[in-house]
Amino acid sequence: MIYDCAVIGTGPAGVSSALNLKIHNKNFIWFGSKSLSEKVQKAEQILNYPGFYAASGDTLQAAFRDQIEKMGIEITESMINEIVKFGDHYALMAGADFYEAKTVILTTGVSVKATLENEAEYIGRGVSYCATCDGSLYRGKKIAVLCNNARFEHEVRYLAEIAADVQYFPQYKELGAFPENVTIRRERVLGVQGAMKVNAIVTASGTTEVDGVFILRDSISLSSLLKGLASEDNHILVNRRMETNMPGVYAAGDCTGRPYQYTKAVGEGNVAAHSAIEYLDETGNAP
Amino acid sequence: MIYDCAVIGTGPAGVSSALNLKIHNKNFIWFGSKSLSEKVQKAEQILNYPGFYAASGDTLQAAFRDQIEKMGIEITESMINEIVKFGDHYALMAGADFYEAKTVILTTGVSVKATLENEAEYIGRGVSYCATCDGSLYRGKKIAVLCNNARFEHEVRYLAEIAADVQYFPQYKELGAFPENVTIRRERVLGVQGAMKVNAIVTASGTTEVDGVFILRDSISLSSLLKGLASEDNHILVNRRMETNMPGVYAAGDCTGRPYQYTKAVGEGNVAAHSAIEYLDETGNAP
Repeated sequence: MIYDCAVIGTGPAGVSSALNLKIHNKNFIWFGSKSLSEKVQKAEQILNYPGFYAASGDTLQAAFRDQIEKMGIEITESMINEIVKFGDHYALMAGADFYEAKTVILTTGVSVKATLENEAEYIGRGVSYCATCDGSLYRGKKIAVLCNNARFEHEVRYLAEIAADVQYFPQYKELGAFPENVTIRRERVLGVQGAMKVNAIVTASGTTEVDGVFILRDSISLSSLLKGLASEDNHILVNRRMETNMPGVYAAGDCTGRPYQYTKAVGEGNVAAHSAIEYLDETGNAP
Repeated sequence: MIYDCAVIGTGPAGVSSALNLKIHNKNFIWFGSKSLSEKVQKAEQILNYPGFYAASGDTLQAAFRDQIEKMGIEITESMINEIVKFGDHYALMAGADFYEAKTVILTTGVSVKATLENEAEYIGRGVSYCATCDGSLYRGKKIAVLCNNARFEHEVRYLAEIAADVQYFPQYKELGAFPENVTIRRERVLGVQGAMKVNAIVTASGTTEVDGVFILRDSISLSSLLKGLASEDNHILVNRRMETNMPGVYAAGDCTGRPYQYTKAVGEGNVAAHSAIEYLDETGNAP
């Protein structure tokens, strides 16, 4: 099945897009965390979201969740790690899972996390963002796994079934249970080292030899997510209709630039959804 | 006193701009109806405003009003009928009242009301939008007054003090009291007629000779509001920062184009306010 639209991200922009796609009876799939945006959740007080006086992030998120639930909108908790243009539509990869959609709305936010030293240089040469895709390359080997969200722990366990030794660097608080070959390391990772391929991971305490490094982050860099996507000042380049340079691909929210505001994000999410709906109608892809 | 900013319009875009100017401690003045947007008020059910599930327009407006009140934001119920560039800032005319502001945010909505036949041709030649400006020209004469909002009734009474005969065409329900020389006419006005100047008003029932026509509408055409303002397809031309072609002038909401959506409007109002705040900082006009 080819979806009318795939929305990536469950922050305010994604919420706004999803509401409009649902109202317009589009057959869409929405990827992200069911707990919505961690950034909004942590906001102490929001004064400038019209309609909510001095609301906590928690209150606003609860209202979003209530609305999504009552409208029967589902969230798929897969991490999309690559999008590829595929004829007149797009293929979305989530590890071994594969989805197809006629249009894509990117609401991926901005990642304030710095990448590691040498990370970019070793992509495909020992640095991987996808356990399912590349795990089998490390059978019986020693790997490092960095992870910033508990929802990827099943991927860590999957890697532990394959690799002989997993050096695990979690960047979140409450850990689940792991097999014996997983060593939990509460240290900040500074970078990776290597020659032709990665051969070590560097932390404040020193260097640990590994055969590969898996990085399981909430968001991956946009250039590796969708090749050919135009950007400007590290944000996705869009026009006022929230169109990117790729046909049928839209973006909304913090990923399109400042101001980083929830109200801007919902506004852009609305416009992006309407542009996608119009595109579906024009290209005769409407149901 | 020169205000940092003047916001024109109290629909969702205006609300969003006002919240942000207030939070940033800007000295701003906000023009429009204290009952906010009539269009929102009449909305039966709004499904796609994030945070409000299936809310009535009334509910959303009540939340806006509550927030504005708690934040101590005032609304000035004057009708701005002309804005003029005045050195490095702007002069705003509301009849005989006069305001000055360093920046202007236009959130005037779209007027779905058609203009009258020949209305544009006779502006300044018998057609006026401002009782205070032009009333004295009609001392002892017979005039027609069209009005679509009860909040302009004081202007009708003012005109009745000057003119001998006022043919009054109200386009709203509950009327206040008027002097004896005001004839209430519940008829649809089709157009104006004239030669060098207006000499009659045309309704379905026929033609009534008058010396002038006053049109008191919630919004006036943008080209007569601010000369030189660039537009495109009858909407104010803006970029993604909500900048118009005039320095320090921003626009947000329905007046900038489709989709006509409350969520888009609040998003744009947020961005417009942030652009104005940045402009004030850059031009050294910040307090």
